[in-house]
This record gives sequence, C-alpha cells and structure tokens, in this order.
Amino acid sequence: MGLELYYSPEPPDGGTLIIRGSEAGHIARVMRHKVGNVIGVVDGVGTEYEVELTEVRADRVAGRVLSTRSGAREPKHRVTIAQAVLKGDRLAQVCEQATELGVSRVIPIQTARTVGRLSAVRLERLRTVSLAALKSSTRTVLPKIDAVTGLGELLTAVNEFGQALVAYEEERGPGLGEVLDRKAGSVLLVVGPEGGFEPSEIDALKAAGAVSFSLGPRRLRAETAAVAVAAMTLGLLGDLG
Amino acid sequence: MGLELYYSPEPPDGGTLIIRGSEAGHIARVMRHKVGNVIGVVDGVGTEYEVELTEVRADRVAGRVLSTRSGAREPKHRVTIAQAVLKGDRLAQVCEQATELGVSRVIPIQTARTVGRLSAVRLERLRTVSLAALKSSTRTVLPKIDAVTGLGELLTAVNEFGQALVAYEEERGPGLGEVLDRKAGSVLLVVGPEGGFEPSEIDALKAAGAVSFSLGPRRLRAETAAVAVAAMTLGLLGDLG
Repeated sequence: MGLELYYSPEPPDGGTLIIRGSEAGHIARVMRHKVGNVIGVVDGVGTEYEVELTEVRADRVAGRVLSTRSGAREPKHRVTIAQAVLKGDRLAQVCEQATELGVSRVIPIQTARTVGRLSAVRLERLRTVSLAALKSSTRTVLPKIDAVTGLGELLTAVNEFGQALVAYEEERGPGLGEVLDRKAGSVLLVVGPEGGFEPSEIDALKAAGAVSFSLGPRRLRAETAAVAVAAMTLGLLGDLG
Repeated sequence: MGLELYYSPEPPDGGTLIIRGSEAGHIARVMRHKVGNVIGVVDGVGTEYEVELTEVRADRVAGRVLSTRSGAREPKHRVTIAQAVLKGDRLAQVCEQATELGVSRVIPIQTARTVGRLSAVRLERLRTVSLAALKSSTRTVLPKIDAVTGLGELLTAVNEFGQALVAYEEERGPGLGEVLDRKAGSVLLVVGPEGGFEPSEIDALKAAGAVSFSLGPRRLRAETAAVAVAAMTLGLLGDLG
C-alpha cells in the first residue's frame, strides 16, 4: 500500500529523531518494527523525514534521520473551510475528508441555525481524526482545526483571505467555477448548517467581502456540500491532480 | 427547510395518485398530514406531482394531482460511478452522496483487490439509502444502483458511455479537468477499492477505451475519491451550480 507515515512534532536533535506516546506504541506493538527498519515521519508543519530505527520501545522510538524533505505532497493553495457545527460525527467526517483532499484549515462556526454543540472533547476528536487522515493521505502539513468561532468573529477575519466564498442554497446565480479567483492564493469557503444560513447572515458575509455561489438546484447535506466544495476548489486550482 | 418530497412509483389514475407502504405510514403517522394538505411526490423516473391529499391512512394515502412537472432539478449530463465494493457502510456513503450530487447510476464492481462483499441485503440497503437521498436532495430521478458487476463485464460496457475515465493513484499525468470531455453527454467514472487497482486492470480499462487521470499526490480513501470525482465532474459540466 505504498508509503507508511508516522507523526512526531519533535524536531531531530543531532540527526536523531524521537517518537513518543501512542505513535511509538503503534510502531513498536502494532506494526512490530525492528531496529534497522526505515520509516517515514512527518512533523505536521511540512517536513518529512526518512528515519532508520535505532531503538524501538512501546513508549519511545528513536532513529537516525537519513533524509529530509519539505512540503512534499502539499497543495500550492491554502484552502480554508468555515463549516457550521453539525450534529453527531458529521463535522469529523468533514475534517477527515477535507484533510485528505488538501484543505489547510477548518474553522467550526456557530451560526443562527446551528443545532449541534462543539464540546472540548468533540473538538479534540476533530483534531485526532484530522491527524489520522494526515497520515493515511501522506500529507506533511496538519490542517489547523480552530476552536468554535462565532459568525461575527469570522466576519472580521474574512479580509485575511485572498478570497472568501459562501455556498448559499438560495443563491440561483453563479456557480463556484464562475466566482473562484484562481489567483487569490488563499480561499475561505463558508458552508452553513443543515438548516442553512439566515438571509441576514448571508448579507453580513457579503458586506464583509464574501461572494455567494450556488451548488445547483438540488439540496445537499452540509457535509456533502463541504466535501464537494473543497474538491471542486482544489480541483479548479490544480491542486487535486 | 423548503420542499418536502415523497416517493411513489405508481402513476396517477384519472388525476388521483396513490401512495402505499412505508411512505404512506410516514405521511400519515410521522408527518401527520391531513386531508387537504398539499405535498410533493416524485416517481423516481423524472416526474414530480403536486398533490392535494384526499385520503390519509397509514397504509394508503391518496390525493388529487394539482400539477405535474418533468425532470425538475436533474442534471443535464448522465454521470455514472463504477465503484469497487468497499468494506462496511462505505459504499452506502458513496451512494448517498452520489445521489445528492446528481449522479445517474452507481455500478458496484468487483476488482482483484476488492475486500468487501456485496450481499443482496447490502445491495438493497444501497438502494434504500439512495431513495432517502433522492427525497432529501429533492431529486426526481432515482439513480440506478446495479447489482455487483465484475470488472470484465464493465469492460464490455465501457463503449456505452460517451467517455470513460478511471481515477488511478499511480497516475502522475493529467488531472480530471484536463481529460474530461465536456461534450461527451454521458461519463463513466471508475474508482478502485482501498488497495487500488492492479496495473493489469488499468491496462484492461485503457484497452477498452477508458482514460486514466490523477487526483494528485495525496492518497485518498476510496469513498473520498468517489465523492470528489463526482463533485468535480458535475461541477465542470455545469451541473452543480
């Protein structure tokens, strides 16, 4: 199945890389790696190491760095999804698929019609799911998963992005391909909750500089909209093949 | 939440439409509709009726057809996904999201590295999930979910489509946007199992006329690849906004 990747945020020291915690346990107990085996390790901020194991214990794995690469397999564009909090495990599904596709950041937002709540435990789960997806997708940069953010707070951050787009189900105008600025560099994609945005929320997003677009006449569940919008955007930007 | 839709395959007779089975139970018991209420009914083959209820029982609902529309909210292009059978409920997720997005047909395929099996019960579940997605997404045409099909059988059917494309993880060449023929009318999208296609399977697909494309350097889970490919294709064809 090709490249097998592990995660360790600790930088190497004198050519030696240390992996601790559950990741060490996975290498030692589940994958049963031995001294001398070569594994791939990513630090979650863009660096990937090829490591020859020199010590394998369930709580601590050490190895000698054979090679170092930067930014491998990462998209060229920064795509951020601001997704309204969803019930159950649906936001985790969004974080998982967004990570695989190459999204740089997910901002869980609280909107007028948001039903679910994002507890600290659920937020931690989003980050765990995203880390697992980082490894399975062989990414090197871990997406940032923000703490839950009010729509008002998001509005003040809209101009930090090259372009801000909002998927609006009442929009009958342009589609994503027509409004996406291929040269924006960074894109914020805003996706509402199951019940949609209130018209006043769309007005506020537009006033802050966001552009609304249509996903067509069919009604998409929020998590389907999020993954569709992420895939279409990364695809149009040339970052998905 | 806008349009509320029910499903009945039975054509109206003399201006009266009958709804039976669990759908009647849902209208009567769950939604507690009364005589005189107006509901939307789709027949799954493109016709949508506006119906004023004249009789509401848990096993049989009848109504007078007020208006009839054809092909509402359906995409202009026929997109088919041939998806290798996946473990657990993942193929159901593909059928659900594909239905929402506007896919016309899903062909579960058996490939060399397919792990899961598609029993009659699981196939029936795919169709149930797709029907529920039809209603929630307000589609009028129910996607066809084929019985499980061998890759060899699929090969003989490739030329029935305007274009056949296969997502291949070892492909480092063109992306979907570069190979998709916007004028093909109907597109077959082939997506492999978790373990990917064997090179000989890709060769056979190409020999049958399919074109392979890349989804980029990251490794996508099969169900993420399927929904990404469906969204990108329908988006590029102008059928997703």
